Amino acid sequence: MSNHGAAGNRRARIRKRLLVTPGEPAGLAGRDTAWTGGKEFERLSADDLDDTAKKVRNAGVERLSEAQELLWASDTYALLVVFQAMDAAGKDSTIEHVMTGVNPQGVRVVSFKQPSREELDHNFLWRVWKAVPERGQIGIFNRSHYEEVVALRVHPGWLDRQRIPGVKPGRALWRERYEDINAFERHLDRNGTKLVKFFLHVSKEEQRRRFLARLNRPNKEWKFSAGDVAERRRWDEHMDAFEEAITATSTKWAPWFVIPADNRHVMQAMVAVILAETIESLDLAWPSVSDEDRRAHAEARRELEAEADEVTEKDT
Amino acid sequence: MSNHGAAGNRRARIRKRLLVTPGEPAGLAGRDTAWTGGKEFERLSADDLDDTAKKVRNAGVERLSEAQELLWASDTYALLVVFQAMDAAGKDSTIEHVMTGVNPQGVRVVSFKQPSREELDHNFLWRVWKAVPERGQIGIFNRSHYEEVVALRVHPGWLDRQRIPGVKPGRALWRERYEDINAFERHLDRNGTKLVKFFLHVSKEEQRRRFLARLNRPNKEWKFSAGDVAERRRWDEHMDAFEEAITATSTKWAPWFVIPADNRHVMQAMVAVILAETIESLDLAWPSVSDEDRRAHAEARRELEAEADEVTEKDT
Repeated sequence: MSNHGAAGNRRARIRKRLLVTPGEPAGLAGRDTAWTGGKEFERLSADDLDDTAKKVRNAGVERLSEAQELLWASDTYALLVVFQAMDAAGKDSTIEHVMTGVNPQGVRVVSFKQPSREELDHNFLWRVWKAVPERGQIGIFNRSHYEEVVALRVHPGWLDRQRIPGVKPGRALWRERYEDINAFERHLDRNGTKLVKFFLHVSKEEQRRRFLARLNRPNKEWKFSAGDVAERRRWDEHMDAFEEAITATSTKWAPWFVIPADNRHVMQAMVAVILAETIESLDLAWPSVSDEDRRAHAEARRELEAEADEVTEKDT
Repeated sequence: MSNHGAAGNRRARIRKRLLVTPGEPAGLAGRDTAWTGGKEFERLSADDLDDTAKKVRNAGVERLSEAQELLWASDTYALLVVFQAMDAAGKDSTIEHVMTGVNPQGVRVVSFKQPSREELDHNFLWRVWKAVPERGQIGIFNRSHYEEVVALRVHPGWLDRQRIPGVKPGRALWRERYEDINAFERHLDRNGTKLVKFFLHVSKEEQRRRFLARLNRPNKEWKFSAGDVAERRRWDEHMDAFEEAITATSTKWAPWFVIPADNRHVMQAMVAVILAETIESLDLAWPSVSDEDRRAHAEARRELEAEADEVTEKDT
């Protein structure tokens, strides 16, 4: 029990450190992308750290899998999980490793790619609206509406394709979009869709190593796109855009967590535990059977049991 | 190798027996719902059979998981998997057990429930069209357009809600619908979406046992609905509707497999292996890197490596 308590305290401490407190700056530059959870983990050798992280992740995935079953059965809330990051921070592999143990009937992953002509001919939240999870489900956004205040901010020329009358890129536009995003997310929260947002925070040097690893492994090279290096050249602009967007949109109803991403196993463990805790905190109950249902069930039971008697009588 | 050959032959034999050969009757009444794969399995004790089936299922899920990765990476085909069955045959648990090991980014499960007003105001394939998987993905239909020739056929009164001018339930209507379904599925197949359809074939007696088990376990009772027994009373009508629908729509491009469902583990093993084999038979290739890409990558590599030199120079 005391161990459980200590582990619980440790989890609460880690969670608090990863959370961007609403109203305070995200402070990305000051956050260590290699943080592993505290002193007790720093002491471990690299191998022991990986083993520990995998164990924590697997236990987290198991809790998440149970929590998802209850989310689905209780049919009361939905959960929307947003992943944003620089390339090679590990969005795809985190989604894969954290969600693979969960019943796919209750999960839907949506990847937001370059918007289509039809999507560009609507406002920027239109395609996001269509993709939100239904009650009882976990919706995972691999990239999201936040590209509209990050990628677009780094490439303001793309805004022309949206052909919004009288709108120009600039501070006022980004502020309006933060406001629209906050209102959208608040509406979801008020109507039963809980939100958690993860920024997977990788260092520039670790991204370099991962890009080189992709380029140097023949069976991974196809995953590399020359455009990735072009985006990398504008690293600082991306960081500024993320800093401002996360600061402006970490709210009580849709908090951001900044997850250190230099160690994949640690990152996956942190994400798995936060997701499990988010659902558990909803304090859901298994569906109960009403008295009326119970009477109907008793009748059904009698009917089914009587069938067996018929079979037996026929047999003899 | 010879063992692999024998196992391969066995799998081909089982697959052939489960397949409804296009143009031939489904023959549901003559198919044993407790068949476990052949003599070598019948010899096993119940526990050994379950263990064997779980092993085969797990190996199948692993193959399926690898096949799905290739399906996604090669970005050439989609796979649409249809599940139909009587209540309690195990659709949900089969989807859960077979698909949980697969990366959820590449899977989307869609459950077709009572149609909404908006859906009823369109033709019956409209909502199905909207749910087909995108290239690279596996789409799972938990129930499907086949409810339109099975449930609706048992309850022809429901057709009124579709308000189709001049249409009455009857042999001609079901024939038209089989034709429309075949044409729809042929179109999918021609355009890169492969189809596999599973009828999970449970016996009436096994359904009775499972219903009673749900009613008698307090934490499972909420899963039971009194309506389930009402449908059961019309068992033979359902079987006739499935027999005719499966016979009419098992095609070369969208075959039906009738899976014996009285043993859940055996059923899951059969489904997992057939799905893995279906993707493997597409003979997909990992994406290759063009000469042009390779040149761009070489340049990117030089740029990334040069960065390290800068860092080192700054450090010294």
